[in-house]
Amino acid sequence: MSAPRLRGVLSPVLTPFDADLSPSVPRFVRHCRWLLDQGVGLSVFGTNSEANSLTVQEKRGLLDALLDDGVSPDRLMPGTGTCAPGDTIELTRHAVAAGCAGVLMLPPFFYKGVSDEGLFRSFARVIDAVADERLRIYLYHIPPVSQVGISLALIERLLKAYPRVVAGIKDSSGDWNNTAALLREFQPQGFDVFAGTETVLLPTLRGGGAGCITATGNVNPAAIVDLYAHWTEADADDKQQALNATRAAFQKLPMIAAMKATIARQTGDAGWATVRPPLVEIEAAQRTMLAADLDACGFRMPDASALAA
Amino acid sequence: MSAPRLRGVLSPVLTPFDADLSPSVPRFVRHCRWLLDQGVGLSVFGTNSEANSLTVQEKRGLLDALLDDGVSPDRLMPGTGTCAPGDTIELTRHAVAAGCAGVLMLPPFFYKGVSDEGLFRSFARVIDAVADERLRIYLYHIPPVSQVGISLALIERLLKAYPRVVAGIKDSSGDWNNTAALLREFQPQGFDVFAGTETVLLPTLRGGGAGCITATGNVNPAAIVDLYAHWTEADADDKQQALNATRAAFQKLPMIAAMKATIARQTGDAGWATVRPPLVEIEAAQRTMLAADLDACGFRMPDASALAA
Repeated sequence: MSAPRLRGVLSPVLTPFDADLSPSVPRFVRHCRWLLDQGVGLSVFGTNSEANSLTVQEKRGLLDALLDDGVSPDRLMPGTGTCAPGDTIELTRHAVAAGCAGVLMLPPFFYKGVSDEGLFRSFARVIDAVADERLRIYLYHIPPVSQVGISLALIERLLKAYPRVVAGIKDSSGDWNNTAALLREFQPQGFDVFAGTETVLLPTLRGGGAGCITATGNVNPAAIVDLYAHWTEADADDKQQALNATRAAFQKLPMIAAMKATIARQTGDAGWATVRPPLVEIEAAQRTMLAADLDACGFRMPDASALAA
Repeated sequence: MSAPRLRGVLSPVLTPFDADLSPSVPRFVRHCRWLLDQGVGLSVFGTNSEANSLTVQEKRGLLDALLDDGVSPDRLMPGTGTCAPGDTIELTRHAVAAGCAGVLMLPPFFYKGVSDEGLFRSFARVIDAVADERLRIYLYHIPPVSQVGISLALIERLLKAYPRVVAGIKDSSGDWNNTAALLREFQPQGFDVFAGTETVLLPTLRGGGAGCITATGNVNPAAIVDLYAHWTEADADDKQQALNATRAAFQKLPMIAAMKATIARQTGDAGWATVRPPLVEIEAAQRTMLAADLDACGFRMPDASALAA
């Protein structure tokens, strides 16, 4: 693959919507530009992107809008995993053809209690169908939401069968023991472990990991990138604690709606608060609490003016 | 809606696949014809149809193949609920335009822990977008798989807002208390309650319900229809027990693969056993056990020769 290996801090990019709930392309492109300026890579179409509420055509259109705007695919890791193999193959082909540095791939997530054999066949089928040596897959392990996880045994088997294609993982299990096992078992083979939250960025880096792919990168990018850039310095634990305090303020509430409300508040663009059903916006009392919590952390979005229309 | 109200026994129609895992249209049409001949309605694109592993285009193509073959839409209740509202709207519009008697609609199922308000908005958005007075929605409540359920409070609200469109429910909760509550609260208003399994067909009918939509209708249709047709007679409880014994044989194993293996065996068409990943076929020892269990029940698929190529 010609694109450089992905490392550092990426964010599942929030998808802004217009009042009619169609994707707001100008807001989306501005937000991606702003994230890149803060040093954050673009994992568009992740869980926090409401990507599972977008059709294949909507995702293709948003990715094309970024590329048309001149965004380099070197920092792009679009989510391409869906329930239906045909959709996953189409989105993955599109991302690879665009030169994206990698793709983030959920397992098929409707059927529960499926076997590692079935999941192996699912991933293998996509890899074989895309049949492009530039393909780099980051497995997306998020059992609290998908309910279908990616076991260590499955990773071992995938790495044996597709050693270069299977490039790493986003671990959103919320289980540090799992992240530690991934770092111990697979990172030494060049399988890049990204934490699914910045709250364990420091231990992930100390364990040899590649970085984190984190929702709060959408609102607190510079501080997270700062810890990534200076994690070997003496104040790293203090920085980690500060990140955790900000994250905790968002985590008290439904995260996607809370982050969108924060961007709406800090940019003065009320339309940013819109979410697609089945999600709902946070309420006025929640917005007040969130603002107070964030003020208490001394939180401000950097250069928020660049995000305003 | 010109189509008559759906009642009785329907089945989430198994989707046969060719060796390359594309849908096998001839097998599918033959299977649907055979089910109709047995008196079973067609809930194509349900959970047991592996519908969540099919793209929108694949589902549209299969529905069109049935209509092109002259299958009447009067006994059709295609599943149209997906994660993405755009896909759900497209599939629902297509079904309504084809004159289907109803659609079976999953809630959006990726995001977990969503509110009734968010689910109400999801269904409302689809109904408003389709904007066709012929639309009849059967809500699909299957929390063991979708993890996102449909509460009594949500149904009440939907019925108030869309009294004719929201026509009924398939209750696959596996919780008889929930089915009983649905029968008590909503069936008297003309909201049709279908059990999600024939194992509670008799109590459902005794409670005033409309019938059942059941996986095993794919293999044991005539016996289930026989109980539906004669449920007020003296031997109804015996018939229910016989149905339960057959069901139990399938339920020991992953149901979809077990039913497909049974059709393969009874028709001599080995290709019928194929499933799409993430599912896997049952193994030889499981097939042997299943065949023995079914023989012990005296089970035979009726007119299986009509299914063979």
